[in-house]
Amino acid sequence: MSTELWYSERWEEGRSGISLKVLNVLHREQSPYQTIEIFETESFGTLMTLDGLVMVTDRDNFVYHEMMSHPALFSHPDPKRVLIIGGGDCGTLREVLKHPGVEHVDMVELDERVTRVAEIYFSQLCESNQDPRAHFHFTDGIQWVADARAGSYDVIMVDSTDPVGPAAGLFATEFYQNCLRALGNRGVLVGQSESPLFNADLIRSIRARMREAGASDVATIHFPQCTYPSGWWSATLAGKGLNLADFREQAAQAKAFPTRYYNAALHRGALAMPEFLLG
Amino acid sequence: MSTELWYSERWEEGRSGISLKVLNVLHREQSPYQTIEIFETESFGTLMTLDGLVMVTDRDNFVYHEMMSHPALFSHPDPKRVLIIGGGDCGTLREVLKHPGVEHVDMVELDERVTRVAEIYFSQLCESNQDPRAHFHFTDGIQWVADARAGSYDVIMVDSTDPVGPAAGLFATEFYQNCLRALGNRGVLVGQSESPLFNADLIRSIRARMREAGASDVATIHFPQCTYPSGWWSATLAGKGLNLADFREQAAQAKAFPTRYYNAALHRGALAMPEFLLG
Repeated sequence: MSTELWYSERWEEGRSGISLKVLNVLHREQSPYQTIEIFETESFGTLMTLDGLVMVTDRDNFVYHEMMSHPALFSHPDPKRVLIIGGGDCGTLREVLKHPGVEHVDMVELDERVTRVAEIYFSQLCESNQDPRAHFHFTDGIQWVADARAGSYDVIMVDSTDPVGPAAGLFATEFYQNCLRALGNRGVLVGQSESPLFNADLIRSIRARMREAGASDVATIHFPQCTYPSGWWSATLAGKGLNLADFREQAAQAKAFPTRYYNAALHRGALAMPEFLLG
Repeated sequence: MSTELWYSERWEEGRSGISLKVLNVLHREQSPYQTIEIFETESFGTLMTLDGLVMVTDRDNFVYHEMMSHPALFSHPDPKRVLIIGGGDCGTLREVLKHPGVEHVDMVELDERVTRVAEIYFSQLCESNQDPRAHFHFTDGIQWVADARAGSYDVIMVDSTDPVGPAAGLFATEFYQNCLRALGNRGVLVGQSESPLFNADLIRSIRARMREAGASDVATIHFPQCTYPSGWWSATLAGKGLNLADFREQAAQAKAFPTRYYNAALHRGALAMPEFLLG
């Protein structure tokens, strides 16, 4: 019997955690920004970690990527120009490009190595990277948004790591103000907003900061995400000049592309907040 | 620095798992049916395991107990008589007794020791055990339902362990037939139905068996449950002579008792099935 290898991520400063049995270490490198590792797990397929934290697994990334992209896109009346900040594994980009109306996507990822490694080990997530509508920029997303022309995007997606280190600025009021400025008269901003169970206070503060930044409407959607802390995750949307409850429900029902988690009824359902997060 | 103690539950035959840091082992016993253990964890409060598997923690049991009880009760037009099979920690019973219209609850738990231990270590979950409407029977639930008078219950809840060993019969067509017979002309059966991520085939077969047993409608609701395998859980409801989408939404909105997860919008939302579970 050979030795068992386990990947273990400790949650909440090491008070709980998840473990995945590892068959092989496929890749390890130190990029200018972080340690990127790829593991072959026994039950979740390929796993990418950044600085030791789960970013994506083959098995469950579909929920996160679909919920980061389709609710925001169906909340906008006619999204043509999209900005993705982060999202280096390209799973969100792939979902965005499923919308035939989208004409231009700027993918602004700080660490080019994340995308290069994903292209090798998560080729399915990167299958749309050659789409002529996709434009890659390996640079700082906070600065990108600060420099963006007013009204230049319909939808902005913040597919970031946790709000510590370089990603902390992606959860600040000033960043949200710049995003809202970079959106057109009707626009949608969405950001991943951590775990409702572990980070309820953070979710409340993200919502407050988005309103403070001038959002006309704010909505948090929640969904299961097995390999993220607590197994329960959220994204928070900010509307500029539109109501997020009035999403294009019929278009979502009639969508011509396949999904595995998202559908129109689930979008409507995900908008319902648990009692403890209300108010 | 003292030695760290960790509780680890391995999922899917040991291919992944969750771990909780343990401060103290509070109780351990071998009942006639299983090993009952109580741990004090650092971040999830008190934890009860049966044969080494998580049954309940202080921190996240509210989601499970509320979703096992309120959707079924608000799906029935006027529930007065309720049967709970399993549910020895009494958390489901407590939620059921929040409904003022409920007049009689039979709690049928195989292992009296689970309830006795819960009364000591989960006193909040057991705070309604002395309610005169609650009637405890420490016996086999499968036999109880087989012997039940036809039409004697409005709602039956199967708050069971996994479908192996003594609980396997609680997922069988014959058991569902007996439940539907024991329900009145309009009645609701609900059973915990495992993880959508890990057990999609089981969920499909539970739904098929409930229909085979004569249910007029079947609905699966899903919800986060951090400490259960995959962090994502489900309950499947069967209606007898009623449609589960037509639940008492206004009554749920106007409910006079507190909840932490459940509300009317969330109930409606939880009925939306992920795309991969449809069809």
